[in-house]
Amino acid sequence: METAPAPHRLVLTLSCPDRPGIVHAVAGALLGEGANITESQQYHSPDTGTFFLRVAVDSPAPLERIRASLAQASDRFDLHLQVWDADRPMRTLVMCSKDGRTLNDLLFQQRTGGLAVEIPAVVSNHTDLEPLAAFHGVPFVHVPLSSDPAAGQSKEAAEARLRELIREHDVDLVVLARYMQILSDGLCRDLEGMAINIHHSFLPSFKGARPYHQAHARGVKLIGATAHYVTADLDEGPIIAQSVQPVTHAQTVAEFVRRGRDVEGATLVQAVRWHAEHRVLLDGHRTVVFA
Amino acid sequence: METAPAPHRLVLTLSCPDRPGIVHAVAGALLGEGANITESQQYHSPDTGTFFLRVAVDSPAPLERIRASLAQASDRFDLHLQVWDADRPMRTLVMCSKDGRTLNDLLFQQRTGGLAVEIPAVVSNHTDLEPLAAFHGVPFVHVPLSSDPAAGQSKEAAEARLRELIREHDVDLVVLARYMQILSDGLCRDLEGMAINIHHSFLPSFKGARPYHQAHARGVKLIGATAHYVTADLDEGPIIAQSVQPVTHAQTVAEFVRRGRDVEGATLVQAVRWHAEHRVLLDGHRTVVFA
Amino acid sequence: METAPAPHRLVLTLSCPDRPGIVHAVAGALLGEGANITESQQYHSPDTGTFFLRVAVDSPAPLERIRASLAQASDRFDLHLQVWDADRPMRTLVMCSKDGRTLNDLLFQQRTGGLAVEIPAVVSNHTDLEPLAAFHGVPFVHVPLSSDPAAGQSKEAAEARLRELIREHDVDLVVLARYMQILSDGLCRDLEGMAINIHHSFLPSFKGARPYHQAHARGVKLIGATAHYVTADLDEGPIIAQSVQPVTHAQTVAEFVRRGRDVEGATLVQAVRWHAEHRVLLDGHRTVVFA
Amino acid sequence: METAPAPHRLVLTLSCPDRPGIVHAVAGALLGEGANITESQQYHSPDTGTFFLRVAVDSPAPLERIRASLAQASDRFDLHLQVWDADRPMRTLVMCSKDGRTLNDLLFQQRTGGLAVEIPAVVSNHTDLEPLAAFHGVPFVHVPLSSDPAAGQSKEAAEARLRELIREHDVDLVVLARYMQILSDGLCRDLEGMAINIHHSFLPSFKGARPYHQAHARGVKLIGATAHYVTADLDEGPIIAQSVQPVTHAQTVAEFVRRGRDVEGATLVQAVRWHAEHRVLLDGHRTVVFA
Repeated sequence: METAPAPHRLVLTLSCPDRPGIVHAVAGALLGEGANITESQQYHSPDTGTFFLRVAVDSPAPLERIRASLAQASDRFDLHLQVWDADRPMRTLVMCSKDGRTLNDLLFQQRTGGLAVEIPAVVSNHTDLEPLAAFHGVPFVHVPLSSDPAAGQSKEAAEARLRELIREHDVDLVVLARYMQILSDGLCRDLEGMAINIHHSFLPSFKGARPYHQAHARGVKLIGATAHYVTADLDEGPIIAQSVQPVTHAQTVAEFVRRGRDVEGATLVQAVRWHAEHRVLLDGHRTVVFA
Repeated sequence: METAPAPHRLVLTLSCPDRPGIVHAVAGALLGEGANITESQQYHSPDTGTFFLRVAVDSPAPLERIRASLAQASDRFDLHLQVWDADRPMRTLVMCSKDGRTLNDLLFQQRTGGLAVEIPAVVSNHTDLEPLAAFHGVPFVHVPLSSDPAAGQSKEAAEARLRELIREHDVDLVVLARYMQILSDGLCRDLEGMAINIHHSFLPSFKGARPYHQAHARGVKLIGATAHYVTADLDEGPIIAQSVQPVTHAQTVAEFVRRGRDVEGATLVQAVRWHAEHRVLLDGHRTVVFA
Repeated sequence: METAPAPHRLVLTLSCPDRPGIVHAVAGALLGEGANITESQQYHSPDTGTFFLRVAVDSPAPLERIRASLAQASDRFDLHLQVWDADRPMRTLVMCSKDGRTLNDLLFQQRTGGLAVEIPAVVSNHTDLEPLAAFHGVPFVHVPLSSDPAAGQSKEAAEARLRELIREHDVDLVVLARYMQILSDGLCRDLEGMAINIHHSFLPSFKGARPYHQAHARGVKLIGATAHYVTADLDEGPIIAQSVQPVTHAQTVAEFVRRGRDVEGATLVQAVRWHAEHRVLLDGHRTVVFA
Repeated sequence: METAPAPHRLVLTLSCPDRPGIVHAVAGALLGEGANITESQQYHSPDTGTFFLRVAVDSPAPLERIRASLAQASDRFDLHLQVWDADRPMRTLVMCSKDGRTLNDLLFQQRTGGLAVEIPAVVSNHTDLEPLAAFHGVPFVHVPLSSDPAAGQSKEAAEARLRELIREHDVDLVVLARYMQILSDGLCRDLEGMAINIHHSFLPSFKGARPYHQAHARGVKLIGATAHYVTADLDEGPIIAQSVQPVTHAQTVAEFVRRGRDVEGATLVQAVRWHAEHRVLLDGHRTVVFA
C-alpha cells in the first residue's frame, strides 16, 4: 500500500500583456497536473496594460513538470513566467557597515522562522558586526574599502570580491542593511531586481545623506523609512515598503535616529519577507506587492 | 457601422467547499461569454474548508446571461453564487438618533462619489437630524420610540414601520449610524448579513453601553471603533473593519468621545464601502474582506 | 452673601531667550493674582536657545490685570508674551474653491463643538460651495478671479477684497481649505503665522501641483497631507501637522485623491484646533506644538 | 583657575493634592540652588484631584541637597516626592521563558544605548535563552519551576529565589518579557509599581491565555500588545503603553503570533524606556505618562 507523497509547494509568478484567457489557461494547466491552488492574486495595470499573477499551489508534480505544463500558455500569452520552490529559502547576502540594529532584526527573524531566507554570508566594510553574525552562526566576510580617494581601484576591487561572493554562494538576493556605501552603476544594473536597500527616510523626501538631519531641520512631524530595489539612480528605485512614525518638536536628531532605527528594521524585514515569498513584481519602476 | 456597446460591469462573489477546478470552471464560463476579468481575489479558509472568490468583469453579455453560464459550475461545485451589477448602487437605509457626525460622513461621501450607495431614506427616532438629511436631499422618516417601558408595543410598532420602509424602498443594506436603540432578536435575524452597525469601541473590549467611559476608567492608551454585521448577539456580530487612535491620560471622557467620532465615521464609511462593492463575505462568524 | 464669580479662563503663551527663573517668575505673578494653573507645557529649544511656555489658568482677575501683572517678568526676561481669553473663539476666515470635503469637515466640527473657532465668512473664487456654507449658517463671499492671464490686475483686486474682509470681520486666522490659488508674496508676508494651508502630500515630498499624480507615478506606499503656515516660499512654511495612510499598487490616482481627502480634512482640522487653542508657537521655521 | 564641574542631571517626580502654589514653590527651591529646568510636564487629574509633576534639571547641587531644598515645599503641599539621578541607569531584572524575541529587543536596545537600564541578570524557568543572554554579556540565572501540580512548594521556592535575586542585585525594576508564569498574589503586591509585564493582546480584550487564538477566533481586524504594571489582579494592572497592527482574514493564528511578536517587543521597550526615565506616575489605577 502506498501513501501519498508530500506535495510540492510551488509559487508561480507571471506578467504579460493583458488579454482574456490567461487565468483560464494557467488554471487549466495546473488542474491537468492535479495541482491545488492555495493562494492566487492578480492585478491588471491600467497604466502599462500589463497583467500580473501570483499563484501558490500544492502540486503532486514537481517544479519542472509544472513549468513544462505551462509552456504552451507561456508561448501563447507571451508570459514572463517564473516557478519557484516555496520550500527553498532564498539565498540572501546581507551587507552592512557598523550599525547592527537592522542586521540584528534580519538575523533574528531569519533564525526564529520569521523570514524564509538562508544567509550564506554577512559582508561588511568594517569588522564591528562580526560577533553579531557569529552569534547567529552566519559566516562574516570583511571586504574593506579604502576611504582614500586616491586609491581609486579600491571600490572596484571590493565590488569584484562582492560579485565573487554572489557567484560562490549562489546568491538570489542582496540586502543592504544600512550598508553606507554607494554601489557602482554597473553593479546596480547587474543586481537589478535582486538587491534591496533600506533608506532612512520617507522617500522621495530627504534623498541622499543624513536624512534625519534634513527631517529635523525641516520640522516634519513624521519620520519614515523606505525599502526599495537598488538602481543606478540613487534612492530612486522601485519602492517595496514604507513606514512612518510620529515625532515632535521636543525630539533631537539623535532621538529621530534612535526611533528611526526601529522603523528601518521593521520595514526592511517586511520588504525582504515579501520578496522572499515572491510577492513583489515590477510594473515599470513601480512594484506590485501581493501582500 | 456598429460601435461596440459599453460592457456590463459585473461582480461575482461565491463561496463553496474547497476543491480543485473551481477557478478553472468559473474562468472558462466567463471566457466563453467574452467577459474580461478586471479584478479577482480568492481565499481558502483552512478552518472551515471553504473557498471564497470575488471576480469583477467587463462583460458584453448581460448579468442574467452570465449567471446562466455559471449554472453548470454552480451545480457541480455547489457554489453559493451571487452576481451583481457593479453600476447599480446598493440601496441603503441609514438609521440614526441625535448625533449627526457619522450620518454626515455617510451622506457627504455618498454625495461626492466616495460611496457607491443610494440612500432612499434616513430613519431616526428623533427629529434633530432632519435638516442634515434635507440638505443632502435625502428623505427623512421619523419613527418615534416610546421611552416608557410600560408602552411595550412601541418598539414592535417601530420595527414594523422599519420593515415596511425596507420593503417599500427595496433596501439592500441597513446602516446603523449611531442609532442608539437595540433591535429585536427577530429583526436582527431577518437582517442578517445586510445590516451594519458601528460600535464605538475596539471590540471585544467595552461591549455594551458607554464604551468611552469604560475605556477612560480602564486607562487605555488607544480608543477605537468597530463596524460589524448586526446579529441578535449584541456586539458579537462578524467584524468588518476596526480602527484605533491614541489617547493620553490628559484627555477627558468628552475628548475621548470627540476623537472617537472621527474614527467611528471613517470606520463605518470603510465598512459600508466594502460591503457596497461586494467585497465582504462571511466565513462562519468571521468576515473575508477582499479589500 | 456673595457667590464667587466664574473665573476667567485664560491662556498665556510666551517665548524668550532661555535662562533660569522664568517659570518661577511667571508662576509667582499668577499666584499673586490667585490664578490657578490648569495646564502647563514648556520646551527648551537647544537649536535656537529659546524657551517656550504655554500656561492655561482659571483666574479671578481679568485678562488685562493678568497681563499687567506679568509686565515685570516680561521686561526682565524679554518675553514675547501673549495672553488670550480661552472662551473667545478665534475668528477664522475659510477660503476654498470647488471641492467641499475639507470645508465640510471644518464647518461640521465647528458647529458641533469640536473646533473653538467662529467663522464670520467663507470666501471662494467659485460659487459651488455656497449652499454648503448656507446650510451651516455661515455667510458666503464670492471673490472671483480672472483666469485670463492678460487680466493682470485681477489677483490684486481679489486680494484687496480679501484684505478688506479680514479687517471688516476682525479675522484672527485665515484657513486655506483647498483654496487652489497661490497668494501673492506680499499677502503671504502680511498673514505670516495667521494663515494655515493644507497641502495634499506628505511634505517635502511632492511639492507643487498634482501631488497625488506625482505620488502615484513614483509608486509610494503611503500618501499624506501636511498642514502648515503659509509663507511666501510655496509649500515651505512651518509644518503644524502631518498624517499618512497606506496605499497599494492596485489603487488609481482617483482613489489616491479620494482617500487623500479624508486625511486632508482630518489633518487640517487638527492643525486649526491646535492653533485656535494657542498650542502652536514658532521656533525659527519649525513649530513647537503643545498638543 | 577653576572650570565649572559637570552639572548633576536630576529628575524630580511628585504628586500631591492639587492646589495653587506648587509649581511656584518647586521652581523657587530649584532656582535657589541654581538648578536649570530642562524639561517640565504637569497634569491636573480632575478625577482624583491630584497634581502630577515631572521636572528634569541640570543642577550644580547634588541630589541630596536638592531633596533637602524641597523639604519645606514637600511638607507644605504634602508631596509624594522622588528625586532621581538621571545618569544612574535603572537596575532591571528581566524574566523570560523560551521565546527570545522580546528579550532580544530589550537586550539589543540596552546595549546600543536605546534604553537607560542596567540588566544585572536574566532569569528564566528554562535554559533556552542562556546563549542569548551570554552573547549580550548578561548573567543568566535558571530558576526552574516544577510543572507537576502536586509539587506545590515549587513556585514558592522559585519566588523565594527571585526575591533573593532582587535584593542581591539591588533591583529597581522587574520586567516580564514573555515570562509565561503567573506570579503569586504576595509577590505581585510586593512588586507593585516596579514590575512591568507585556500582555500579547490589546487589553482588556482577550485577557488570560492564548490571546492570539482568541483574537483569531473572534475575527478581529487589529491585534495588539499591552505593557502594564503587574498587580495581583491578572491582566488588570495600570496600562503604560499599547500598540496594534492590522491583520486580515487571510492570516493564520501562527501569523498573528509572528506579527504580534514585533508589536510586543516594541511596546515593552517603550514602556520600560518611559519607566526608566521616570515618566510614568500612578493616578489611581491609571497611569500618567509624561512621554
